Amino acid sequence: MSLRQELINIAKKARQASRQIQEASSSLKNNVLKEMALGLIKGKGFILKANEKDLKKAKLLGLSRAFLERLTLTEKRIKEMSDSLLEISELKDPVGELIKAWKAPSGLLIKKIRVPIGVIAIIYEARPNVTSDCIGLCFKSGNSVILRGGKEALNSNLAIYQALNLAIKKHNLPVGLVNIIDTSVRRAVDELLKLNNYIDLVMPRGGEGLIKKVVELSRIPVIKHYKGICHVYVDKYANLDMAQDICFNAKVERPAVCNAMECMLVHRDIAAKFLPRMLEKFKAAGVQIRGCQAAQKFAKGIKSASQKDYLTEYLDLILSVKVVENLDEALAHINYYGSGHSDAIVTENKKNALKFLRAVDSACVYVNASTRFTDGHQFGLGAEIGISTDKLHARGPVALEELTTYKYIIYGKGQVRTV
Amino acid sequence: MSLRQELINIAKKARQASRQIQEASSSLKNNVLKEMALGLIKGKGFILKANEKDLKKAKLLGLSRAFLERLTLTEKRIKEMSDSLLEISELKDPVGELIKAWKAPSGLLIKKIRVPIGVIAIIYEARPNVTSDCIGLCFKSGNSVILRGGKEALNSNLAIYQALNLAIKKHNLPVGLVNIIDTSVRRAVDELLKLNNYIDLVMPRGGEGLIKKVVELSRIPVIKHYKGICHVYVDKYANLDMAQDICFNAKVERPAVCNAMECMLVHRDIAAKFLPRMLEKFKAAGVQIRGCQAAQKFAKGIKSASQKDYLTEYLDLILSVKVVENLDEALAHINYYGSGHSDAIVTENKKNALKFLRAVDSACVYVNASTRFTDGHQFGLGAEIGISTDKLHARGPVALEELTTYKYIIYGKGQVRTV
Repeated sequence: MSLRQELINIAKKARQASRQIQEASSSLKNNVLKEMALGLIKGKGFILKANEKDLKKAKLLGLSRAFLERLTLTEKRIKEMSDSLLEISELKDPVGELIKAWKAPSGLLIKKIRVPIGVIAIIYEARPNVTSDCIGLCFKSGNSVILRGGKEALNSNLAIYQALNLAIKKHNLPVGLVNIIDTSVRRAVDELLKLNNYIDLVMPRGGEGLIKKVVELSRIPVIKHYKGICHVYVDKYANLDMAQDICFNAKVERPAVCNAMECMLVHRDIAAKFLPRMLEKFKAAGVQIRGCQAAQKFAKGIKSASQKDYLTEYLDLILSVKVVENLDEALAHINYYGSGHSDAIVTENKKNALKFLRAVDSACVYVNASTRFTDGHQFGLGAEIGISTDKLHARGPVALEELTTYKYIIYGKGQVRTV
Repeated sequence: MSLRQELINIAKKARQASRQIQEASSSLKNNVLKEMALGLIKGKGFILKANEKDLKKAKLLGLSRAFLERLTLTEKRIKEMSDSLLEISELKDPVGELIKAWKAPSGLLIKKIRVPIGVIAIIYEARPNVTSDCIGLCFKSGNSVILRGGKEALNSNLAIYQALNLAIKKHNLPVGLVNIIDTSVRRAVDELLKLNNYIDLVMPRGGEGLIKKVVELSRIPVIKHYKGICHVYVDKYANLDMAQDICFNAKVERPAVCNAMECMLVHRDIAAKFLPRMLEKFKAAGVQIRGCQAAQKFAKGIKSASQKDYLTEYLDLILSVKVVENLDEALAHINYYGSGHSDAIVTENKKNALKFLRAVDSACVYVNASTRFTDGHQFGLGAEIGISTDKLHARGPVALEELTTYKYIIYGKGQVRTV
């Protein structure tokens, strides 16, 4: 059988299964999730052994330390994956929610209700915990899932999949619910992305190269987390102590995540008062600064920031700093160089705050808070499958509700249309 | 300048303009819409002359009667286009609506608010009225629009665009708000579909060939109206008089539209009672029937329905008819052959009605009403830009609200994240 045909068969089975699961009760789904959580704990020996295989191969291939770190599973990590499934079992089931209901002029009763999307494909790189998170979230929201992880993590992913799938089998749920593509052939992704007749949504999770490839090739709708180039703008009217705390937190608390600040913008009228102390603090924390000409005056040994720096998601203890003329320049900078993820203003001036909230074209726009709060848990939405920097369907945290769509169900009494 | 660079310039201008219009007040937008409506009436001589040019050329090229019919503008049609703009001016402005607000555990106040999408491209075929409808709806919802109509209607579209654009200029609104691509080079569409850095959404409106091309080539998210293969299933427990009225209406009232019935499914236990009279009525109305073997027994001269028939959107006085064993067979048929648009059951049995509503995976699912009601106006949503058969972002009628997205605006008091 050709690779294409194999993939079509998987996708067809997934479609069929999604039709069967959409009516499953919340309590059944929650029980299965709890058993999946237990399955991970019970299967940890098996999972760790598979992970060792992947690690051995990755070391032989000379992959980077950061890569190995992402690939590595430990008892603690497996426990976290298991806890995450338990957490998902406790979240509210979005399926079946009545979004709106009204009577149309014809007397028809129209109800807009929340339903699963159907079949979701996830294409990701080397983190094996993504496997269980995605299975849990897609299952709870009534969707079938097709997983395609990085080939370097194939053994680990297969082991996790098997551990979770026992719960599916035990409850006689359709096997097409959870699917993993077990070939490491690269072309499998290209072929998968053509199956828009069977797959409703594809979510790539990984580096820029992967995202660009998926956007270019996919005939299936894509929701993506592109980059997190987040800004904090310290306004002329900022409380400078607060600004220092927020900027420090946004950059230093966890620099490798998407909602960390990558560029700090400072109003020129407070630069002399704010920047020396702030830059000192950053330096002490090991942050490398790349500044505009004006910023370079406020501390020694600051590298010059290039256009490329402003477009870069460092994911590291590196920060671009720019002194701006006014709020308008800050807004123009953010909307041009930003990635539509999360941006903040620190100000005590209400007018400037409102202008910033309105004008910044990003998923999450903050006044007087750290960009680090962009997160499903921090928002109170529970576990998330990622942060969307797209504008359609889902923007910001993609939690259970964002993994659903709606349909209209309409009750008539024999109405026909005459105009 | 290369075609690609020209298109990028248009898209950049559109992006810039969308940032400026997003804060425009509803009253300003409504005034502009009213002036646009007036502009069409004032400019009708000019528009009709441009349309004559297009018609002359189309006739020389020997294009079909149906094509010429769609292309033709008359005083009456221009009046309808103008009225449609007035109607849009009276609809509620969706921009700025507070969708939800809550306090997060950290004390942050999170507001989810409705905002324009940004830049929307519309690719369409020969109907010049689409030009003014799309300009009106995109403008009201705070978006910039880039129009690319069929080359056969280029003169008509340019004339309409000019008439409407006078209102934009009069109010000193940015010219990038409304854009029309005035080259008839086919490659322009291919290039446009690559501009995902500047354009947020593309909506193709036209035949299957156009839709498939856009889905295949676009790097921009697509919302599409694919096909309308709508079904009515007459259940064993149907009120047969009601079923007859509904089926007749769904097929005959306006066969050329997407929400018309293309396939009628009939439970075998009532086929002998229902079909002879129903098929007689269809025949009298000039409907050509293509039936399954069982259906063929109930009237003379019925052609046999092929697999291809069940997959065809006739848009004409042609109907597939199939006798089914039971509700499950009807559901399987609809989910396999249907296009996810609109499907109805006629039944007095509540259990069957609920099962049908849940199991049919379509945008609009009806009990005891004609599929012809799938329409923005009939739903009470006002003018629409099309019916989405997709599942993401918008499903069913795409009216003003569906032309918006949301963002989170978050108010803090200096919060930083520590876990």
